[in-house]
Amino acid sequence: MKRNLYLNTMPVEEAGELYMRSLGDAAGPHTEKIKVTDALGRVTSEAVYALYSSPLYNSAAMDGIAVVSSSTEGASESSPVTLRAGEDYMVVDTGDPVRKPYDAVIMAEDTQENEEGMIIHAAAPAWQHVRPVGEDIVSGEMILTRCHRIRPIDIGVLLSGGVTEISVFAQPKVGIIPTGTEIVEPYEDPKEGDIIESNSRMFEAMVKEQGGIPKRYDIVPDDYELIKKSVLRALDENDMVIVNAGSSAGTEDYTVHVLREIGEVFVHGVAMKPGKPVILAKACGKPVIGIPGYPVSAYLAVENFVYPVLRSFTGMKGSSGRKIRAVLSRRLVSSLKHREYVRVRVGKVGDRYVCAPLARGAGAAMSMVRADGFCVIPQEAEGYEAGETVDVILFRTAEEIDRTIVCTGSHDMLLDVISDLMSGEAEGIRLSSTHIGSLGGLMALQRGEAHISPSHLLDEETGIYNESYIRSIFPGEEMVLLKGVRRIQGLMTAKGNPLGIRGIEDLKRVRFVNRQRGAGTRVLLDYKLKQAGIKPEDVDGYDAEAATHMAVAAQVAGGEADCGMGVYSAAHAMGLDFIPVGEEEYDFVMRPETLDMPEMKCFVKLLGSDEFRAKLDELGGYSLEGSGEIMKIK
Amino acid sequence: MKRNLYLNTMPVEEAGELYMRSLGDAAGPHTEKIKVTDALGRVTSEAVYALYSSPLYNSAAMDGIAVVSSSTEGASESSPVTLRAGEDYMVVDTGDPVRKPYDAVIMAEDTQENEEGMIIHAAAPAWQHVRPVGEDIVSGEMILTRCHRIRPIDIGVLLSGGVTEISVFAQPKVGIIPTGTEIVEPYEDPKEGDIIESNSRMFEAMVKEQGGIPKRYDIVPDDYELIKKSVLRALDENDMVIVNAGSSAGTEDYTVHVLREIGEVFVHGVAMKPGKPVILAKACGKPVIGIPGYPVSAYLAVENFVYPVLRSFTGMKGSSGRKIRAVLSRRLVSSLKHREYVRVRVGKVGDRYVCAPLARGAGAAMSMVRADGFCVIPQEAEGYEAGETVDVILFRTAEEIDRTIVCTGSHDMLLDVISDLMSGEAEGIRLSSTHIGSLGGLMALQRGEAHISPSHLLDEETGIYNESYIRSIFPGEEMVLLKGVRRIQGLMTAKGNPLGIRGIEDLKRVRFVNRQRGAGTRVLLDYKLKQAGIKPEDVDGYDAEAATHMAVAAQVAGGEADCGMGVYSAAHAMGLDFIPVGEEEYDFVMRPETLDMPEMKCFVKLLGSDEFRAKLDELGGYSLEGSGEIMKIK
Repeated sequence: MKRNLYLNTMPVEEAGELYMRSLGDAAGPHTEKIKVTDALGRVTSEAVYALYSSPLYNSAAMDGIAVVSSSTEGASESSPVTLRAGEDYMVVDTGDPVRKPYDAVIMAEDTQENEEGMIIHAAAPAWQHVRPVGEDIVSGEMILTRCHRIRPIDIGVLLSGGVTEISVFAQPKVGIIPTGTEIVEPYEDPKEGDIIESNSRMFEAMVKEQGGIPKRYDIVPDDYELIKKSVLRALDENDMVIVNAGSSAGTEDYTVHVLREIGEVFVHGVAMKPGKPVILAKACGKPVIGIPGYPVSAYLAVENFVYPVLRSFTGMKGSSGRKIRAVLSRRLVSSLKHREYVRVRVGKVGDRYVCAPLARGAGAAMSMVRADGFCVIPQEAEGYEAGETVDVILFRTAEEIDRTIVCTGSHDMLLDVISDLMSGEAEGIRLSSTHIGSLGGLMALQRGEAHISPSHLLDEETGIYNESYIRSIFPGEEMVLLKGVRRIQGLMTAKGNPLGIRGIEDLKRVRFVNRQRGAGTRVLLDYKLKQAGIKPEDVDGYDAEAATHMAVAAQVAGGEADCGMGVYSAAHAMGLDFIPVGEEEYDFVMRPETLDMPEMKCFVKLLGSDEFRAKLDELGGYSLEGSGEIMKIK
Repeated sequence: MKRNLYLNTMPVEEAGELYMRSLGDAAGPHTEKIKVTDALGRVTSEAVYALYSSPLYNSAAMDGIAVVSSSTEGASESSPVTLRAGEDYMVVDTGDPVRKPYDAVIMAEDTQENEEGMIIHAAAPAWQHVRPVGEDIVSGEMILTRCHRIRPIDIGVLLSGGVTEISVFAQPKVGIIPTGTEIVEPYEDPKEGDIIESNSRMFEAMVKEQGGIPKRYDIVPDDYELIKKSVLRALDENDMVIVNAGSSAGTEDYTVHVLREIGEVFVHGVAMKPGKPVILAKACGKPVIGIPGYPVSAYLAVENFVYPVLRSFTGMKGSSGRKIRAVLSRRLVSSLKHREYVRVRVGKVGDRYVCAPLARGAGAAMSMVRADGFCVIPQEAEGYEAGETVDVILFRTAEEIDRTIVCTGSHDMLLDVISDLMSGEAEGIRLSSTHIGSLGGLMALQRGEAHISPSHLLDEETGIYNESYIRSIFPGEEMVLLKGVRRIQGLMTAKGNPLGIRGIEDLKRVRFVNRQRGAGTRVLLDYKLKQAGIKPEDVDGYDAEAATHMAVAAQVAGGEADCGMGVYSAAHAMGLDFIPVGEEEYDFVMRPETLDMPEMKCFVKLLGSDEFRAKLDELGGYSLEGSGEIMKIK
């Protein structure tokens, strides 16, 4: 099979409209009758009317006695009236029928029983404490409109109104076919060259959330005939089919050819990033969609093209997500060739929402987990400037965003520990951290884009951490320095230290991996190199940059580099050897008002908790001397 | 069993806190290990860390050729370099490993093949288009914190990170016991005195939504021993039990006595309206909650007291609902004896949210279906004045509220028809109508509390509908009158017209049911009575008021009255006889800018649609002459 080097790239909207138009009846909806008791979350396909009234008859609204109102006339505190049992009144509980001649109810607590009967001290006007037939629901009345998603209260009212079956949109069955010779099931032990198949499981969950019934098929290797056979079987057993991946134009991308043979391909390639290699087709009178393999591309392709088909089947209207306006923290450049979806973290700092772009790679699935939403750059725009206010489509509610501490700066694994502990506290408090190095964090704090900045910047002249940097970045402003931890920095190297590295002086003879500019660890390295009289250009790999301690450790563990600098906990977590070069202070910088946020009070509380201390002991390489101390810096 | 006339009424907060404290470990949480592929919607009980890195190895980010970067040095448009297959390069697809000595990838579209090998026109720097091991996920990295609700994307990333099993909070099993001698299963044909059992089905759905597993038991009659047996069995088979009803203090309310015998009752009665008769208890080391029988009380009692216990089991944090601030349209008086939950409809008129209280009865379940939220009046407040801005806890999203037409005024069944048709249109457009009569509707419109007011007010002097009323209520303002329908008004009477009613003149000799003051139908009646020379005091039941045409029809059908006035469609729907007394005009009044709302454009479109016409034909008694015409009134 030859490569088909260039895909068409149709604008996203146009592709979607063309597809839905081409599908016509192939995208449902179908309807079915179901029991009301099974209807939670289902969507009505037609209006529902009450069969009975509720209450079904005039009934007592209170526990007490049913009386004939005219026989109570004149009763008062000063001239009580005695009613005779079986003649003048009847004991009723709430909900009991009030039959003629009775036409009113007197509450139990307003009566007194004696031998002669029941004594009352006030007249009961007609219809007092009686619920007339149909007070709540009148037979024939519309209870629900069409396209209504059934809630618990609806189930109660439908049954009260005598409705036991309703018409709803049928749930579409969706076949999901993972393809690829290199992919393996999650439960097998992966070898080099293997890719763990996870997309189809994500699709199953996405289909369920949208009200469909997913059916996943076995992994099909990259083989034209096998793919064709699997697609035909899935089409036979489902209402629509998703094929993943092989939707691009590579040598082993058979999907589009198979779909051309057995059906009609309307679109191959859309102007969307990530997510360009999408196939929108119909075969055997049913929708078939080819989805790219990169997880972020896959997610976006499903949201943009599978969801509308599912909604057409399920009758769900729902909007496409909550939108807010947020100030962009960094310039975003995009191409006129596509609409781009940039994952962002969002937080509310002061009275404005700010958003920080995350990794943009189509393979960076973890950034989807970390993200709070998408900033969408339209195809006709070349991007946005830093400081511009942009639309963000949120994954979370605005309430969750409002309760999030935005933490921007230096990376340490203890942030994960605090974040985990915070999530265990009441009512959805969150810590959202972005790692751009100590200096970058302080700059973000200065621009009002973060609540707190973790920082470990050494002043070479005084040997004091952070203080002089704060004074120079926030001149004339009073800032708070919340003392964090002392941690051991050092050189990480392969297990057993095969190259016999003993310290900074050995960096001239090994392949090194550095941290990015502005990272406190890099500042420390530069200081140590200077002390040792080594020039940066003499270190092989000084310009190779990794963004976190763990990323450095991964490079060393993977053999890409012989040595990198970082904290003990990262080396420990990756099973590396560690040569200490010194202890440093890792603190949190913030504006004074931030200390008053309830979320921040929780952060400070957790910093001093036994569970935090125990977790750090487990990670290793930390000391908590002075931790939690609050200093004012001006 | 004696009546226990007075319950304690503990403040809501205090009761909840006392109960959760008393339950201690009895409210979980328990944890369990489950497969990641089954984890959608479940909540992590501990942080989850990656077992593998992703990618697992250095891999190609593009389809193309893997090369040794140093061997491409110097390649350019003017001096292309030819690479030899198997030696200088290797063909790779996206995701394939890039093994040493290869350290870069050149995209397929930037290469040209000839007999000697592959021609390239640009040098490839080291690591170009290569995804380093761990670029997305580093082994040992925290993927999710504790208390995180699993989304589809999380499933994908967990599997990519080698995690196939996770610890989550176990789903609590909840036994639900409906009790009551008078209640019947929904599938039986109810007789007088029967109450259709619907609460337990609502509870099942509520428990499911909160992540529990409901188990409903058969209806138990009001019998001490039978209730005790059922509760003990349910306790044995579940993590907690809900008993409904019998939670009050009536002669047949056994629940509290049973629970006192087999366990401990912490609270009986809370200061909440509706929902006072709640029992909070523990038996056999498990929570047992007694819930009142009225559906609205039941709903509120479950939300306030069952949900916190469920959340303690499931680890779900979630907030207690979206809040907005809205202007109250009517005075609300409440007692210092309780916290009151008032159902309200909410709409956005102009730039402010307005809310209108609905029926306050504990039995008015249908008002829960119609409501958009609760206005909560705290125990320490005696109510709110009309025009005050109050907190509303929404059942719907603010987006849905923003897309709702608020329709306040006269009632007609055609509003249900339009509401149903609107729900079928794209993206959640809604019509929300409150029925307070024509005059009340115009006053609400005047105060900015509604978008449109359906009105059929006859000017006795001119015989013209609505116009003079608009001029007098909106002096000097230009208003829009959207012509609606002509409809037949008449007298409704029992099937076969047993009393031989022929017209208005017969109202002197029958039991009548009237509409409320300000209703256009009452204005019409008064006019007709005057024409016939009949005084209101000569009509038996002139002061008996019903709020809608259907409510009047229900009273006549139920035999509470012999005759009432209303539209043909209502008589037709309830199978009543109908004696026409005249045709009238039923129109929609609004401010000019309302016509520009997209939702209103949809309303106007539907008013002229074939489906609307067909539905009105089905209802009967309408003509659409002049319908959709827009008049400016000043």
